Amino acid sequence: METGVASKWPRYLQAELGFSNHWHPALFGHELAEGGFASVKMLGTQILLTRVDGQVRAIADQCAHRGVRFSAQPLCFQKGTVSCWYHGWTYSLADGQLTDVLTSPESPVIGQVGIPVFAVEEQQGLIFVFVGDQEPPALSEDVPPGFLDTDTHCLGIRRTVAANWRLGVENGFDTTHIFMHRDSPLVSGNKLALPYGFVPADRGAMEVHSQGWPKGVVDNLAQNYKPVFEAQLGGQPVLQCQLSGDEKRVAARVSVWLPGVLKVDPFPDPTLVQYEFYVPVGANEHEYFQVLQRKVTNEADVQAFEDEFENKWRDLALHGFNDDDVWAREAQEEFYSHQNGWANEHLFPPDMCITKWRQLASTHARGISRGLRSGGGS
Amino acid sequence: METGVASKWPRYLQAELGFSNHWHPALFGHELAEGGFASVKMLGTQILLTRVDGQVRAIADQCAHRGVRFSAQPLCFQKGTVSCWYHGWTYSLADGQLTDVLTSPESPVIGQVGIPVFAVEEQQGLIFVFVGDQEPPALSEDVPPGFLDTDTHCLGIRRTVAANWRLGVENGFDTTHIFMHRDSPLVSGNKLALPYGFVPADRGAMEVHSQGWPKGVVDNLAQNYKPVFEAQLGGQPVLQCQLSGDEKRVAARVSVWLPGVLKVDPFPDPTLVQYEFYVPVGANEHEYFQVLQRKVTNEADVQAFEDEFENKWRDLALHGFNDDDVWAREAQEEFYSHQNGWANEHLFPPDMCITKWRQLASTHARGISRGLRSGGGS
Amino acid sequence: METGVASKWPRYLQAELGFSNHWHPALFGHELAEGGFASVKMLGTQILLTRVDGQVRAIADQCAHRGVRFSAQPLCFQKGTVSCWYHGWTYSLADGQLTDVLTSPESPVIGQVGIPVFAVEEQQGLIFVFVGDQEPPALSEDVPPGFLDTDTHCLGIRRTVAANWRLGVENGFDTTHIFMHRDSPLVSGNKLALPYGFVPADRGAMEVHSQGWPKGVVDNLAQNYKPVFEAQLGGQPVLQCQLSGDEKRVAARVSVWLPGVLKVDPFPDPTLVQYEFYVPVGANEHEYFQVLQRKVTNEADVQAFEDEFENKWRDLALHGFNDDDVWAREAQEEFYSHQNGWANEHLFPPDMCITKWRQLASTHARGISRGLRSGGGS
Repeated sequence: METGVASKWPRYLQAELGFSNHWHPALFGHELAEGGFASVKMLGTQILLTRVDGQVRAIADQCAHRGVRFSAQPLCFQKGTVSCWYHGWTYSLADGQLTDVLTSPESPVIGQVGIPVFAVEEQQGLIFVFVGDQEPPALSEDVPPGFLDTDTHCLGIRRTVAANWRLGVENGFDTTHIFMHRDSPLVSGNKLALPYGFVPADRGAMEVHSQGWPKGVVDNLAQNYKPVFEAQLGGQPVLQCQLSGDEKRVAARVSVWLPGVLKVDPFPDPTLVQYEFYVPVGANEHEYFQVLQRKVTNEADVQAFEDEFENKWRDLALHGFNDDDVWAREAQEEFYSHQNGWANEHLFPPDMCITKWRQLASTHARGISRGLRSGGGS
Repeated sequence: METGVASKWPRYLQAELGFSNHWHPALFGHELAEGGFASVKMLGTQILLTRVDGQVRAIADQCAHRGVRFSAQPLCFQKGTVSCWYHGWTYSLADGQLTDVLTSPESPVIGQVGIPVFAVEEQQGLIFVFVGDQEPPALSEDVPPGFLDTDTHCLGIRRTVAANWRLGVENGFDTTHIFMHRDSPLVSGNKLALPYGFVPADRGAMEVHSQGWPKGVVDNLAQNYKPVFEAQLGGQPVLQCQLSGDEKRVAARVSVWLPGVLKVDPFPDPTLVQYEFYVPVGANEHEYFQVLQRKVTNEADVQAFEDEFENKWRDLALHGFNDDDVWAREAQEEFYSHQNGWANEHLFPPDMCITKWRQLASTHARGISRGLRSGGGS
Repeated sequence: METGVASKWPRYLQAELGFSNHWHPALFGHELAEGGFASVKMLGTQILLTRVDGQVRAIADQCAHRGVRFSAQPLCFQKGTVSCWYHGWTYSLADGQLTDVLTSPESPVIGQVGIPVFAVEEQQGLIFVFVGDQEPPALSEDVPPGFLDTDTHCLGIRRTVAANWRLGVENGFDTTHIFMHRDSPLVSGNKLALPYGFVPADRGAMEVHSQGWPKGVVDNLAQNYKPVFEAQLGGQPVLQCQLSGDEKRVAARVSVWLPGVLKVDPFPDPTLVQYEFYVPVGANEHEYFQVLQRKVTNEADVQAFEDEFENKWRDLALHGFNDDDVWAREAQEEFYSHQNGWANEHLFPPDMCITKWRQLASTHARGISRGLRSGGGS
């Protein structure tokens, strides 16, 4: 971990395991059936999820007794509890208290031991978990504006990326990384006008939303920049977009919000908005949630969007386009994790969006995650 | 490694690589033929074993010259010696002294260099090695009472388990972990009465044998506890053993002995006793020796036991039953090795057998292993 | 890494990543075509090589901006430059200066940022790179005498060996390790007289060339030693070479030169000289270049040598014989890298060639490599 660097965003540098006391997505709702179990590592903490009477419960995935994971063989003998497979210690999913020990009736340890439980909200097809020690705020405070709009439908995918979560956020919000997407199948497949880069147009500044919640940074690409459709070396053009004039314009406005969520509006099509959540797993991995949102007015709209998602956007956009971003983040991991990249990087003016985000996050994040067992050391 | 914990068993916490100056099994005797070689890592030290005129010799598996392992290509040009494949340095197996250098006749280094040799005893089909710097005591001081009885025959298996050796001992001696075996094929296959747990019956206490040798802790399960055949949550039964009354009762008495050997009497059948040795390999592995013992009076008894072992006990008991224990120990490794489980665990009254063992071991173990090359650091 | 050892060769012990300010081979010339790219890690530094108008250029394989490797997707839009795939930062291969940013025309960062470039020499079929911060000397100062002779032809192979580079040099220069080659297919295949070891013959001493460059240690095996063709234990012969008298004598003279290059003259045949370069990759790997050299007077000689190399020497000598050396070096790695072998080894008189080399290298090497990013820590 970086040390001793006097920094303009000190808490951001400490947040290797992400920001605690915020809502983060853990799973898509359809991944957890009634009575089913799933174990998710997020912010360095292993959490057991289960669905009881439709409602998702979250509890630390580790027995207080000898430290094993419930998820190695999850047992539920009575609704609303989880029992450890090793010695039968049984906890309430409501508050984490030890309520019974199957192997030792009336044990004096009952009621004297508890493990953490976590608040859960399920919205827009995602299961959000609040990891921290404060009272959870409304979910709306930790997602981009518009995400919870009720006249919309959301669909998405997730996967684990071998890079720290901050490299995920910064890759997504970075305006000039668009260069690496120039040959993406999405560009021709959806007939997009995708420039090589951007030049400030003196038509406005980046917006930093630091009052109220959610807090974020908004970059109005379409309004504030001139796109670069011809790239030059030494004054000679070496790359030139072939534009016919009827290309679709996307990504008019890109924003990032605490605790680390991207919104690209519209993208990858004028009819869609893309959200990306970069959820810390451990120090060198994040879970990458990609969600597309469309306005819908009836069930037929939903069905049409689901068909279109399966037949077009999943492969062309969420994979075809964003797979390159996954690759780019993993390509940065060595430098940032093992060569002190946070101190050795050389940013340039277009990275101002990134530095604004770092400053906002460092100043306003509610907490720094230390992982569940940070008290003990080994 | 755990640090700075004021502990009731400080030397036990230090013994990540096990207890030195004790006898530990290295191999089964049938694994080493006359003139053959084997290399075994135990207590952090790599040891070369070979059999000469029927007798097993043990010597450090590392040439003093440039540090290579003899076992990479073991060479014996003359009985009672081992030669290094790299430069021909040749050592006596009797005392570890360098007696010749094949590449450099009459080298002044001859007689000036030596490597460790280890005392060996072969009993009950096992090859025991004494790793330490003291004069070895009789083997009988380091094995459970009854193990060396001459009117018995022993058969067994071994395998490497990815968990510290102490998790092996504690898993074996732990009374309430019986809960996890409730659906084992052994229970129905050998018609055993296996409870879910135990409740003290006020009929006697655990015996701590700390005078003389061997030293150990004996838990008289059958006498001192009432078995739990119905497990409850909130006063409601959730698990119930279906007993017909003619089930066999086993595990009447379970004990553990320095340097870390379990005896379950009888098990897995009224006609058998099971011994388990948890031999430290490195910090995160132990070699698990499982041995069944039966009284025999003639060669026909031996043959019958060997047939029964192959046809029944190997699969039903040593694998079918104990594979679950292997899995449980490996499931604890993360917590104890990386989350300071020794300080963060929450023991409960039935774990008294474990704490008695830890205290006995911490107080009376003859030495703490540091591995062969602990002097050098890297 | 070894620490705190008062040593007779202190800078040699520090040189885990090799000696900087020296020439080291990076590739064979035929491995890099015009316009092609290759990325090589040497002395802890990742270097990008490309060939422009026939000449090889070498530049740090890491963009100054966000630290990614150019080689992940090398881009050249204009001769003499390399562009980063991520944001289009473009560097001159001549001096490493940032000359353009494809995504951000006329960016103020242009001309303000640079990355290291490295001097390159291509000779005898090898591409040599100078890693360091001094003015490069002539290549002839860093290769064994005779290697650059113009009336010769060189052919060879390379591979990565999982051992520190110093174990490579010492294995090659070590006279008594010949013992391990006694059954090599090369001995019978090329009818060589290969002894088991050597005894000093009082006919001369090792030559240490510490004046001028190259600097090295020369061991005149044929002149100064008596070969051992019968190996004994306790005065009894246990190994005996069956010599008919018409065997070829090779390896009359073995020498090692800064920064770590072996010359065996002649070998593996009286008509050939073998050179070996042990180029540090990281702390636990070196690139092993094996080169055979023969005097040639015309193109027919070259062709004959190339045929003979493919049909005979590659398999019989460079693999058949030297594969055993690769294996031996890897067998030493654990001891030297993890058990402080540099302090715990026991050398004996025939290792004087090794200690002379260590002293020469420690005293005269121009610099100690710290890797490219040693300033930052993580």
